[in-house]
Amino acid sequence: MSSKRLIYLPLGGAGEIGMNAYVYGYGAPDKERLILVDLGVTFPDMDGSPGVDLILPDITWLKERADRLEAIFITHAHEDHVGAVAHFYRDLGAPVYARAFTANIARGKMAEFGHSDKAVRTVSAWPEQVEAGPFKVSFLPISHSIPESAGLVIDSPEGRVIHSGDFKLDRNPMVGEAFDPDLWAEAAKPGVRALICDSTNVFSLAPGRSESELGAPIEELVSKASGMVVATTFASNVARVKTLAEAGERAGRSIVLLGRAMRRMVEAAIETGVLRSFPKVVSSEEALNIPRENLMLLVTGSQGERRAASAQLARGKYRGLTLAEGDMFLFSSKTIPGNERGVIRIMNQLSEKGVDVVDDSTGRYHVSGHANRPDLLRMHEIVQPQMVIPMHGEHRHLREHAGLAKANGFASIVAVNGMMLDLSGNAPKVVGFVDTGRTYLDGSVKIGALDGVVRDRIRMALNGHVVVSVVLDEDDVPIDGAWVDAMGLAAKGTSNAPLADVLEEDLGQFLARAARKTLIDDTKLEEGLRRVVRQSAQNEIGKKPEVTVIVSRMG
Amino acid sequence: MSSKRLIYLPLGGAGEIGMNAYVYGYGAPDKERLILVDLGVTFPDMDGSPGVDLILPDITWLKERADRLEAIFITHAHEDHVGAVAHFYRDLGAPVYARAFTANIARGKMAEFGHSDKAVRTVSAWPEQVEAGPFKVSFLPISHSIPESAGLVIDSPEGRVIHSGDFKLDRNPMVGEAFDPDLWAEAAKPGVRALICDSTNVFSLAPGRSESELGAPIEELVSKASGMVVATTFASNVARVKTLAEAGERAGRSIVLLGRAMRRMVEAAIETGVLRSFPKVVSSEEALNIPRENLMLLVTGSQGERRAASAQLARGKYRGLTLAEGDMFLFSSKTIPGNERGVIRIMNQLSEKGVDVVDDSTGRYHVSGHANRPDLLRMHEIVQPQMVIPMHGEHRHLREHAGLAKANGFASIVAVNGMMLDLSGNAPKVVGFVDTGRTYLDGSVKIGALDGVVRDRIRMALNGHVVVSVVLDEDDVPIDGAWVDAMGLAAKGTSNAPLADVLEEDLGQFLARAARKTLIDDTKLEEGLRRVVRQSAQNEIGKKPEVTVIVSRMG
Repeated sequence: MSSKRLIYLPLGGAGEIGMNAYVYGYGAPDKERLILVDLGVTFPDMDGSPGVDLILPDITWLKERADRLEAIFITHAHEDHVGAVAHFYRDLGAPVYARAFTANIARGKMAEFGHSDKAVRTVSAWPEQVEAGPFKVSFLPISHSIPESAGLVIDSPEGRVIHSGDFKLDRNPMVGEAFDPDLWAEAAKPGVRALICDSTNVFSLAPGRSESELGAPIEELVSKASGMVVATTFASNVARVKTLAEAGERAGRSIVLLGRAMRRMVEAAIETGVLRSFPKVVSSEEALNIPRENLMLLVTGSQGERRAASAQLARGKYRGLTLAEGDMFLFSSKTIPGNERGVIRIMNQLSEKGVDVVDDSTGRYHVSGHANRPDLLRMHEIVQPQMVIPMHGEHRHLREHAGLAKANGFASIVAVNGMMLDLSGNAPKVVGFVDTGRTYLDGSVKIGALDGVVRDRIRMALNGHVVVSVVLDEDDVPIDGAWVDAMGLAAKGTSNAPLADVLEEDLGQFLARAARKTLIDDTKLEEGLRRVVRQSAQNEIGKKPEVTVIVSRMG
Repeated sequence: MSSKRLIYLPLGGAGEIGMNAYVYGYGAPDKERLILVDLGVTFPDMDGSPGVDLILPDITWLKERADRLEAIFITHAHEDHVGAVAHFYRDLGAPVYARAFTANIARGKMAEFGHSDKAVRTVSAWPEQVEAGPFKVSFLPISHSIPESAGLVIDSPEGRVIHSGDFKLDRNPMVGEAFDPDLWAEAAKPGVRALICDSTNVFSLAPGRSESELGAPIEELVSKASGMVVATTFASNVARVKTLAEAGERAGRSIVLLGRAMRRMVEAAIETGVLRSFPKVVSSEEALNIPRENLMLLVTGSQGERRAASAQLARGKYRGLTLAEGDMFLFSSKTIPGNERGVIRIMNQLSEKGVDVVDDSTGRYHVSGHANRPDLLRMHEIVQPQMVIPMHGEHRHLREHAGLAKANGFASIVAVNGMMLDLSGNAPKVVGFVDTGRTYLDGSVKIGALDGVVRDRIRMALNGHVVVSVVLDEDDVPIDGAWVDAMGLAAKGTSNAPLADVLEEDLGQFLARAARKTLIDDTKLEEGLRRVVRQSAQNEIGKKPEVTVIVSRMG
């Protein structure tokens, strides 16, 4: 037995916030039976991944070992935890386990890919256990910003590991289970080898605040509003959506849910019994006949997403509804770093319409879903693990969290994506590194982040693209010089003649002077033409464009 | 005289934070003699302006009226106020006035374009006045985050206008003049028609803090550090650079200035007498021979700029200097919205090196250079203008500021770029709209933001680019089908054959079936080929690329 080991291997989510995917394994080295915790996505941006539709973790390592994968466990229904499940379901072929609300959302995703409802199995909370090879796994309820979030109690022959999932210590989360320290202490009682722990808010020094603190200020705000009220938050934050809706209802307003995700999440919460009461909702068509001061719209797009309801309302209209002077727009949300430009764009568009924007700057209308530093310390204390392995964070979060744990006497390590740890000893031990990375869903195709496709797009965006076409006759003599088409480049430069003309002129001279050994050799010819274009463009407009050369030979 | 008027026309900076350019005029309508206050730039980003080097205001309106322009006044040396002066100097042909430090920086920019030192004239502070047509203009010192910032007292036959410039109410700014309420009250005493006022921090509710509060905490931080200390801030914040350097010196460290702007700004401040003492500085070469615990580097790149010293140190090395475990990196700066990704990238790279990062989250190591809401109110009160015109802000800032002014009994209006106001009456009156916008410096060429060049780049980045080349013989019969080159697109799609082969196959079929009237008509042929590519790519990879068709006719 001594040759068997318990391993932990993050394939996503450790060293970034997004696309979580954590592997646990038990067995002889390279023969471990595996389980996967979470399988999420992250979102592209123009800076690094223009044109990409969705970013998935590169789980090649796991796909090649799919025969050793016993099961997939999803801690909660946020996209960065469940978003890639359907994309990889066929590659992995393992059953997916989740609690009812999460399972409902996951099944919706599976259905989009034509996978059966049975692909996802609903599990009850602790103490129910799922057997998965050498593991027994139980879902331990904990509060977060989505219903039915759970930590996982993972039992192996090497003892118990607790994977926290995303969490906060909310004793009154309004929807879903409260954080129950006794329950967590009970789960920890037999002794915990390792706590794999959320690190998102390790830099937030004050204790986290409860969702229940928001109802009164939001109600006060809404009751004072004179025009239409619009509020946006993450649709998956069902408690917040409920708080907002109830505030609206108490202020005598009819509630409208706008945006696909907003309706889907409330539906799922009702279907699974997570949400037992919710104010009556009217459709956007009905809303058109209700005075604006009696309306409250709850809308998607709190992060400034261009196609979401918020952005559409800010630009003009959404399902016939428009904003007007004197309306109020509430961001009951925090802007995720990187999304500031999109959110500010909306705020300014709203300002132009005379709409009053209220955001979270006062701290009255939003609370975070993650444990702050004092909450993390409390969690360490309750669980009393042998080691704390920080996860769900950028490198700086993991490092800070590991430092904190060590300062309190727990063994710890910064384990980033691809780093395989052996948890069998008294302290985590690095036993290997595997290739990880990002897979882009691009249109209908999956491509590797390093395939060069996106790099070429970025180059065209930065440098423009010149296309050169040359036709050579049977004797390899150029016919009519070169044709040039320039895209994404200034029409004219220093000489004040059209850029394409200048390039064609210079290319023509090059071709006229070119030696026969250049003309007969595609590679040499292309290199020469490319060099001429780049030099000529540099002189003319001060840029060296990307160049594509197409040589057609009539021979 | 009654037909003459005093006008205000923002061409940049009103409705955005960046590229300030404010026109004032006095005279008969459309015959006003003009002055320009500030002529700044703003910076491109991958989202909206990929590949662009710099963004300048579109001042076509002013260029067409350059014969009526008397002078250009620069309030301070920040890039968003002075950055475009040299780019447009030839177009405008008016003298540029500034105080000594600002003039020094402006002359450096002029020199890069081969303009004479005499293009910029140095002016002393209030009460010295510059006559400029019907205007008399005086520079009224005020505190900001750069030395010798000034408001402008603009006298016209219609009375006095005060243009605040960027400002804060700092009684102890460490470098440069303190805010002097008596001086401002004196300037306002004869009565002020309009206060044109900075709006940047209108949403910051607490009174602004003084630069002088930072010395002690920074010194404490640096004295506790055990490895090398690196600190970044805006190079133009000479007071901060001095505070940082002095803290380092007191902690027994040698100071190194890294980054061109950092050295340039300190030089300019010393040359112009603004900075009378500064710790001894050692070169990066000398630093290599000094133990790291005795070094403090002051570096550019607080906003995460990829080519600046901060980013280079975070990635690897800069001028031979490298960071190591146990070093400390201080961001004595705030991240400007939109720059978060770049800054966070650096923080994580530093974390990977084991460098401890300290940022502004505690508020101890940075103060803003702009007046907060209570400070704006105080400025209104001191100046007691007939009207307050908010400037230097996004729409939401201008609107909030105007609301604040109105609530306190001042006439006000939200005047955005291109909106011409007549200030001659009791309240601002909109008398026209002129076209404004953005001019891109792209390589060595200026292009209009709406010329389509950047739009094409963005399209290529989002959709990829397919180039099709077709050669037709003398009888307009295609030779050898079509050649395809795809850039920024997945190599293979659903059929698992190379994308280019699939496209060539489909294009070949189209050409074989094409009617003669299509083949003889370039436009029809191109349209047809483009349609085939887009449809075929949509089927194959789920994307519709940009398409360039080059038709070569041997006829």
